[in-house]
Amino acid sequence: MAARVLVVGGGVIGLSCAWRLAEAGHEVTLVAPDPGRDSASWVAAGMLAPVTEVQFGEAPLTELLREGAARWKEFATSLERASGHDVGYDESGTLTVALDTSDRAALDQLLAYQHSLGCTAHRRTASECRALVPSLTPTLRGGIEVPGDHHVDNRALLGALVQACRTKGIRFVPLSVEAVAAGGAGGGGPSVDLSDGSRLGSDHLLLAAGTGTPHIGGLGAAGLPEIRPVKGHILRLGPAEGRTGPPLLPRTVRALVHGRSIYLVPRPDGTLVVGATMEERGTDLGVRAGAVHELLCDARAVVPGIDELELLEAGTGLRPATPDNTPVVGWTALAGVAVASGHFRNGMLLAPLTAAAVVDLFGAAPGDE
Amino acid sequence: MAARVLVVGGGVIGLSCAWRLAEAGHEVTLVAPDPGRDSASWVAAGMLAPVTEVQFGEAPLTELLREGAARWKEFATSLERASGHDVGYDESGTLTVALDTSDRAALDQLLAYQHSLGCTAHRRTASECRALVPSLTPTLRGGIEVPGDHHVDNRALLGALVQACRTKGIRFVPLSVEAVAAGGAGGGGPSVDLSDGSRLGSDHLLLAAGTGTPHIGGLGAAGLPEIRPVKGHILRLGPAEGRTGPPLLPRTVRALVHGRSIYLVPRPDGTLVVGATMEERGTDLGVRAGAVHELLCDARAVVPGIDELELLEAGTGLRPATPDNTPVVGWTALAGVAVASGHFRNGMLLAPLTAAAVVDLFGAAPGDE
Repeated sequence: MAARVLVVGGGVIGLSCAWRLAEAGHEVTLVAPDPGRDSASWVAAGMLAPVTEVQFGEAPLTELLREGAARWKEFATSLERASGHDVGYDESGTLTVALDTSDRAALDQLLAYQHSLGCTAHRRTASECRALVPSLTPTLRGGIEVPGDHHVDNRALLGALVQACRTKGIRFVPLSVEAVAAGGAGGGGPSVDLSDGSRLGSDHLLLAAGTGTPHIGGLGAAGLPEIRPVKGHILRLGPAEGRTGPPLLPRTVRALVHGRSIYLVPRPDGTLVVGATMEERGTDLGVRAGAVHELLCDARAVVPGIDELELLEAGTGLRPATPDNTPVVGWTALAGVAVASGHFRNGMLLAPLTAAAVVDLFGAAPGDE
Repeated sequence: MAARVLVVGGGVIGLSCAWRLAEAGHEVTLVAPDPGRDSASWVAAGMLAPVTEVQFGEAPLTELLREGAARWKEFATSLERASGHDVGYDESGTLTVALDTSDRAALDQLLAYQHSLGCTAHRRTASECRALVPSLTPTLRGGIEVPGDHHVDNRALLGALVQACRTKGIRFVPLSVEAVAAGGAGGGGPSVDLSDGSRLGSDHLLLAAGTGTPHIGGLGAAGLPEIRPVKGHILRLGPAEGRTGPPLLPRTVRALVHGRSIYLVPRPDGTLVVGATMEERGTDLGVRAGAVHELLCDARAVVPGIDELELLEAGTGLRPATPDNTPVVGWTALAGVAVASGHFRNGMLLAPLTAAAVVDLFGAAPGDE
């Protein structure tokens, strides 16, 4: 039987889960003030990079990320069919370069670790790097090529998800959730209190509110891990008006610049997404001058040609992080209330896998198909 | 007799002339798409700095700038009375600092030149500079204090001018001017063709269109000097939300940073205006990543604390410059058509003087007072 499902949150996780739940036959309502836009996903770069994102000591997470990546091609194809929109899924691979010899040493350590986990990653000399990406600085110290680390256009993806949700008849409620109430012993399902004073009931409820989670009432007994905001600054740079020619970057470039990490992710229209800082500063969303300086400084050290691009946008987002940096997906201690959050740096990458897990959790409703 | 005067242009020059002409008894119409905002004046810093702006070889211009500065206090007082708005006129003076020994040598040369012109300017040691402005970098190499170089809040000023114009009954026509026609031999005055296809007549016409001048038809025989756009990038930085305490800068700070010039001008609300590049790139108004980087890089070298400010705005404007960098104010070769343009870096400073000159040119109409 189809369940009435309430999804709280309009980022990539909430939207992906809502869409897949509707496909599985559920009657879905999504509550978010501005679905797609009002989320960390909107300011993301859209990297799908389990190998490049490898962190020492987080082998189980790496396993999860690789599983997530394996789902992406089918997810993108299926979403493009459902929505009629291109999501900018791009398999051109990722190149990570080193700017100085210490950066080179750090990349070599990373490469050894990637190999120890069975990942495909190739050591590249400086000239091999520049053959792949001619706009790179001539002073670089070589790098790592990871052909299997891809990217997606995050904003195209969010637009396609909203469209696919609408096509599937999902109801959008453009409000905030003030509080959640668990399902009752008498069989009543969980409900939410909305910012306009009304209440919405359901059979199942999915919390996909990211860093908004701590601001929702009624979750004290839910048994959730702490979800803390990790702020990121990101820039969008575009070709100057009237400029034509090949794009500055034919693939995603990441770099270590004197120990600092940076990435530059191309979009089909020639825009580059440059990010990102990692700052634990509460929920402040202000764009700091020092962070913009740091990103521009490191980006132009890697690709000098960015000086001539236009600064289209300087934005910030709050990544939802758990204490062990691993997402939390499953039932909470509140009857009928599940959670899918804490995706930290990997919301885009893990959205297909998380959505599949949530569909399993709530049970498909094949009778309604 | 009161003349019907058409003012073309809504920057500080057009607005100041319009207001003063209306005060002199003329019947004024001001044509500009968005008075106050759609102008180089909107992105200006508002420095009133004849001494700090001294350029070798431009002694006559310096004389003009000093004459302009002498008019400012009365102009500000009179405008505040007329408009009921504070214009943020600030007499705290200007400090110019040197970041390295070459910068120090360059400032010493400038100081000698300032003294040779009879300007008041004092050599200051590094510790004297930091006593005046404690947020300055400890590594600076001293500077020059010019107590008579002041500043005004450019946006407050423009708002006050628009208000004063309205109070005086000036008619605003929010359109562009496509072409100008000279007054006829039969005694008909000059007229303009507007972007909506209509025509406006007048007794006198004042062109105060800045870098828009070359786009106006019918001026081929006006005998105007070439007015070229000199692009400037400017940043506005503000205190992070919720931060209190004394402002980062108690006065205007300018600096030579390894040969490059930068300025930081404080506003009463704690905002800093940081500028400005000088670029001859036609009429392109795009915000270049390289220019933003340069401004942030130099500003934080002078005042490290700007790293913690929010980047509120990155903007550009086009300064109208003549071949000799001196404004052109007077009658053109077209009957009834005058010009007030080419104020380059000094539109704010010269607005009171230019407005007075234009009132003299058109003649007061005391009979109507």
